[in-house]
Amino acid sequence: MAITVVGSVAFDSIETPAGKRERCLGGAATYFSLAASYFTDVRVIAVVGEDFGRRQEAVFQARGIDMRGIERAKGKSFFWEGSYLGNLNEAKTHVTDLNVFASFEPKIPEAYRDSEFLFLANIDPVLQRRVREEMPGVKLVAGDTMNYWINDHKPALLEMLKGLDILLINDTETRSLAGNSNLIQAARAVMAMGPSSLVVKHGEYGATLFHSGEASRTFRAPALPLEEVVDPTGAGDSFAGGFFGYLASQPELTPAAYRKAMFYGSVMGSFACERFGTERTQNLTREEIDQRFNLFRELTHLD
Amino acid sequence: MAITVVGSVAFDSIETPAGKRERCLGGAATYFSLAASYFTDVRVIAVVGEDFGRRQEAVFQARGIDMRGIERAKGKSFFWEGSYLGNLNEAKTHVTDLNVFASFEPKIPEAYRDSEFLFLANIDPVLQRRVREEMPGVKLVAGDTMNYWINDHKPALLEMLKGLDILLINDTETRSLAGNSNLIQAARAVMAMGPSSLVVKHGEYGATLFHSGEASRTFRAPALPLEEVVDPTGAGDSFAGGFFGYLASQPELTPAAYRKAMFYGSVMGSFACERFGTERTQNLTREEIDQRFNLFRELTHLD
Repeated sequence: MAITVVGSVAFDSIETPAGKRERCLGGAATYFSLAASYFTDVRVIAVVGEDFGRRQEAVFQARGIDMRGIERAKGKSFFWEGSYLGNLNEAKTHVTDLNVFASFEPKIPEAYRDSEFLFLANIDPVLQRRVREEMPGVKLVAGDTMNYWINDHKPALLEMLKGLDILLINDTETRSLAGNSNLIQAARAVMAMGPSSLVVKHGEYGATLFHSGEASRTFRAPALPLEEVVDPTGAGDSFAGGFFGYLASQPELTPAAYRKAMFYGSVMGSFACERFGTERTQNLTREEIDQRFNLFRELTHLD
Repeated sequence: MAITVVGSVAFDSIETPAGKRERCLGGAATYFSLAASYFTDVRVIAVVGEDFGRRQEAVFQARGIDMRGIERAKGKSFFWEGSYLGNLNEAKTHVTDLNVFASFEPKIPEAYRDSEFLFLANIDPVLQRRVREEMPGVKLVAGDTMNYWINDHKPALLEMLKGLDILLINDTETRSLAGNSNLIQAARAVMAMGPSSLVVKHGEYGATLFHSGEASRTFRAPALPLEEVVDPTGAGDSFAGGFFGYLASQPELTPAAYRKAMFYGSVMGSFACERFGTERTQNLTREEIDQRFNLFRELTHLD
């Protein structure tokens, strides 16, 4: 079943201990779409500027991603520059130029309206909520957010959370949103805000899935111990793409489907780190993905 | 098969967000022995002072732990005082009084010499090495260390590591010992120093088992997401006790036995955090342990 995703399509300049790249294709919606495209049909809503050309388009096209919802605006695309020189787990942001993104008004193409899955990537919760309200017929809605919205836009964020089935955030964000340093208690508090499921991403330590009211269904997926993390940019969005893409490909949302989705999330997150930007995520085969899935199984299963 | 463990038997005063305890029974060898005692026979080598009385003895006796190697010396037992008020993952040490431990000279009782398993808990690597050399017939030797020895006693530590089969340390210690921030590369460097297996403990995120030359046998065990961490003191030593105790109980050290041992390590580590000091670890049943083992399986297994 098709996923509609709303979020950023951007250019990123990235420096890591492995090197440097100028103006790679980036943005949460980009990483999410590419990762999800190995599992199901993906439709993007975003805005780009005049610097978004054929080369960038081709990356989406090669993965069969529907771009009719990518609006072309006058000006430049969202641009981010950051480095991970001291700490591969947390980027240091040098530049954030919103550019055309500053006045983004998501418009949902008619052809997207029958999507059964909706992913609200990390953007202004006011916009996330608007898109969610304009697609009342979706079967499952997942979303992401970040500390900026938690700290400075909490009322809007809390309104948005009421419309989510699944929230995907990291440890720090979970603790900060709940105001509680115990992860289990914080997870429960966050689920009381709306989402019936919560995926807490632990970076190099994997991720935990919580279901409200069903402690017994808590599930922990590992991350792959990687020999070299070339560039962690987009790992979280790629996790979300693998996770939600797999769910959307399933006939039924069983507990077993959620568990496998967690593994596919970790798989896509691990690929994302292996090369700069989208280099690895845009060039995978389903066979490589399933081989890595099996590696994750071996890494965690007793027999 | 019997394990001989050498390490500290101590008194701890502990403050955590859950409360405060004065002079609990503590020490690495204590936690290790109690945890391992659910799986196999355990023999302790340590030194205690005149403050170590009937009540403390009874804790070991109730678990059938051999205390003939616990030397009674004039003076006070090792005493540690610390708190975890800001951060449950790292203790802030307020007082370390070595007392009788300052002149500890481990003596191996004759009755211990047929032990097939040896655990060198975190003490001066010079002493660890001496005990290891005095027990040349053991089948498997595991040990622990800490940043203090890594930073300030590295030559002695490197000598000791040559005699180890399995080293159990945490992420920070692994990275610092190897001088490499990538965990996989650091793990490989540490195994090149001697131990053919390395268990890296990730605190609330579980632990990873590495085997030198066999990347395919890497295994990651989770930690249980706990509703309330009452007191993390001794969690790492309890992990080691569950891990090594289970291995010692097995007829063959197969890859499958190592995997299960990692789970039993996590199980014993999770119990240790549930009450102050050894309160929980000294009062378990094998049935409770195996129930929690199954919980860990559900938490991580796809089906």
